[in-house]
Amino acid sequence: MNYKLVFHILGLILRVEAVLMLPAMLIGYATGGDGPAFLLAGGITLTVGQLLCLLPGRGAKMQARDGFAAVALSWIVLSLFGALPYVFSGVLPNYVDAVFETVSGFTTTGATVFTFMEGQPLGVLFWRAQTQWMGGVGVLVLALALVPKLGEGSVFLMRAESPGPIKSKLTPRIGDTAKILYSIYIGLTVAEVICLRIAGMPWYDAVIHAFTTISTGGFSVKNASIAAYGSLAVEWIIIIFMFLSGINFALLYYALCRNFKAVFESEELRSYTLVTVAASGLIVINLVSNASWAMDARTVTDSVFQVVTLMTTTGYMTYDYVLWPTFSQMVLVMVMFIGGCAGSTAGGLKQIRVVLLFKNLRREVQRILHPRVVTTIKSDGERVDEPILSGIALFFFAYMFLLLAGTLVVALDDVGFTASFTASLTCISNVGPAFDVLGPTGNFFSLSSLSKVFLSVNMLLGRLEIMPLLLLLFPSLWKRR
Amino acid sequence: MNYKLVFHILGLILRVEAVLMLPAMLIGYATGGDGPAFLLAGGITLTVGQLLCLLPGRGAKMQARDGFAAVALSWIVLSLFGALPYVFSGVLPNYVDAVFETVSGFTTTGATVFTFMEGQPLGVLFWRAQTQWMGGVGVLVLALALVPKLGEGSVFLMRAESPGPIKSKLTPRIGDTAKILYSIYIGLTVAEVICLRIAGMPWYDAVIHAFTTISTGGFSVKNASIAAYGSLAVEWIIIIFMFLSGINFALLYYALCRNFKAVFESEELRSYTLVTVAASGLIVINLVSNASWAMDARTVTDSVFQVVTLMTTTGYMTYDYVLWPTFSQMVLVMVMFIGGCAGSTAGGLKQIRVVLLFKNLRREVQRILHPRVVTTIKSDGERVDEPILSGIALFFFAYMFLLLAGTLVVALDDVGFTASFTASLTCISNVGPAFDVLGPTGNFFSLSSLSKVFLSVNMLLGRLEIMPLLLLLFPSLWKRR
Repeated sequence: MNYKLVFHILGLILRVEAVLMLPAMLIGYATGGDGPAFLLAGGITLTVGQLLCLLPGRGAKMQARDGFAAVALSWIVLSLFGALPYVFSGVLPNYVDAVFETVSGFTTTGATVFTFMEGQPLGVLFWRAQTQWMGGVGVLVLALALVPKLGEGSVFLMRAESPGPIKSKLTPRIGDTAKILYSIYIGLTVAEVICLRIAGMPWYDAVIHAFTTISTGGFSVKNASIAAYGSLAVEWIIIIFMFLSGINFALLYYALCRNFKAVFESEELRSYTLVTVAASGLIVINLVSNASWAMDARTVTDSVFQVVTLMTTTGYMTYDYVLWPTFSQMVLVMVMFIGGCAGSTAGGLKQIRVVLLFKNLRREVQRILHPRVVTTIKSDGERVDEPILSGIALFFFAYMFLLLAGTLVVALDDVGFTASFTASLTCISNVGPAFDVLGPTGNFFSLSSLSKVFLSVNMLLGRLEIMPLLLLLFPSLWKRR
Repeated sequence: MNYKLVFHILGLILRVEAVLMLPAMLIGYATGGDGPAFLLAGGITLTVGQLLCLLPGRGAKMQARDGFAAVALSWIVLSLFGALPYVFSGVLPNYVDAVFETVSGFTTTGATVFTFMEGQPLGVLFWRAQTQWMGGVGVLVLALALVPKLGEGSVFLMRAESPGPIKSKLTPRIGDTAKILYSIYIGLTVAEVICLRIAGMPWYDAVIHAFTTISTGGFSVKNASIAAYGSLAVEWIIIIFMFLSGINFALLYYALCRNFKAVFESEELRSYTLVTVAASGLIVINLVSNASWAMDARTVTDSVFQVVTLMTTTGYMTYDYVLWPTFSQMVLVMVMFIGGCAGSTAGGLKQIRVVLLFKNLRREVQRILHPRVVTTIKSDGERVDEPILSGIALFFFAYMFLLLAGTLVVALDDVGFTASFTASLTCISNVGPAFDVLGPTGNFFSLSSLSKVFLSVNMLLGRLEIMPLLLLLFPSLWKRR
């Protein structure tokens, strides 16, 4: 690893983070007592960032390992410093809690240790939502767009940070691609703020929820999450924006360019839409076949909302789904596994991986039928290379192993199998709420520090798609170059 | 598919099954009223078998697809006919229940729909245990050893039926390999009968439990399973024989031939032993750190017994582990995933697959560090081919997908997530008991017919390692050749 270069990148990132604490600081000073917490946290972050930036990072040639290591370490460092405002403001005096909340923010998970939302300082709540918005398309890609001085090596940063097995560069220059993605991201956010305001939500709440919708994060400012507004219009606006945010941003760009052919031919978008419709339909049928639910707009909205919010890995709530029958809950667990599309802000395995796994499995069985026929697997008409296919299958194994390892750790808190398993799942899939006692009306506060640390690691593993963080375990990475 | 050949094999298999009903029939006539049920069932099975054998199967060249199809269809047909004695004797009047119990027997799962064991007819209980013993190393391999007239094509049958990703032929001739395996199998069974008898178990019980230990099946003749005997000696005898049955029979053969080098160098055996010790140790620590359990022989025996019985996918009980803390239960869930060694009678993913998945994952991460280095993966010093590695990764995906699909179906019975998930896991891993309401003191009787059918399919999928049964879904298999 090229230490100087990696530390230089960490410094850049911390400087950006310090600057991004400004809005929350201003809100803090304007509305209550949490301004000084941000001034102190921002000051510390800026100072450390400046010191790291003194290291000469320019000119050094970046290799894949440096890119992956820089991304993994950046997300860890960002979380450690991003947690400071929670501690300094006294909202979360325990540093482990603060780090959990920050990781949950940056990874756009939305699992919370807050036991009560109403009455919390507005600066802190703003920072909490903003971490999700920053984490959404990647803090590093943002830094790249702002500070495009790392040159060609930056492709490794983007490869390591952006989700999905197949990376598409919209433009030859990586900085331009990042700018396009950020423009769509900001455009969607502004559009949702306006829609929510028109539907009657106050400005502050509208901004917060737009931040945490477009990033598929799911932090809210209400205990009852979206249910608190009791408005079908608000819920459908959020359903639509969550759904859009779960689509590959490259497809959204093509749609804006009126290249509808690319949009309609996308197998991943088709699978994403199909799963959404099928899962919602199954839940509606399951609910109305039970005496406790009627076939009305409320039931349909709740079903669609919960499916979309968990599949896009946002994690809002309009209904406490742990009260639903087991089958409906299991449908939700399934969509939490799958997640949204690659190249979106959503987490989970990603639709395209699941599609390719099924195609690959079908080919494996067909090999028995036709042992001598060599077949290639295609996605959207293009051949998918074998290393990508085997990488996806191994990614799936790593995902399941880390999920079970996380379950084992949370099980030490003796909260039952359902809560342990779904807590680990919700963290590695970056969803937010789990099931049973850790359902959408519960929170993660009561878990042990060990569980919180392990779940934080699982959130980071999920957001960075495992490999960059696993790399940190290899001693040969840490050799000086 | 070559219909004539496959039907001919089905006929052979049914004739063997009819003959194997004789012992239970004799016990039935000698002890009570269930003799005629076996006479009728055996007569029907023999007649159908004879009719199918009239088709000319000799001389036709067998291809891989025919072998896989013959194995998949044989196990289905065997189960459909093997269920008849339960129905005719009136013990399980519902045919779906009878098929579930038979599939659970042949696949050596041990999940039961019997709500009460004591007082059931002795012929039926003997048949129930005998299905497990027959299923243990494979009914088809047995038929091959008895009727070695299928020639070289029979290698496809063995490949499809015997567990594990890497097949080892101990001798050049497949019939000889089968005879060696069966000799070890019978030897272990006889040894266990004698040990259990010496430890004070009645002859009938000793034979039944030896049948269901060596096959890692887990059916008992007592409601309380092994706990009913209240004897540490019995429990340790069973622990040892379960552990032996979970080892690759080829290694047992090498040990008998005094080739100890091969035994000690086996990575799979090392992993199997390590997981057993680690899991037992974790459970003991977890239990004694809780006020309800003391550090004594009882606690240690229960911990080791439950780990070995669930990891070898036997499924006996000496303690109702659903009363243990969540962590201990989760350790048991983990070992149910892993299972025993390939080439043993145990189910689950198999140790070697898990070892190779980890090796492959490590290589995948190392590729980031050394992009230009091509590394091969070795097992016991020998290179593992890439198609086997990618096949294992896809097997893992298929396993998890079928597990979740099974969970979804059982969830329709609204028994909660834990029971649904572990019921599906226990069936696809061929273990037996699940958790929560479907734990070792419960049974599967209350589930819907849909769940029972789906879980039966999952048991067959687990026993035949998925691919042969998935093949049946491909229309091109059914084309006449």
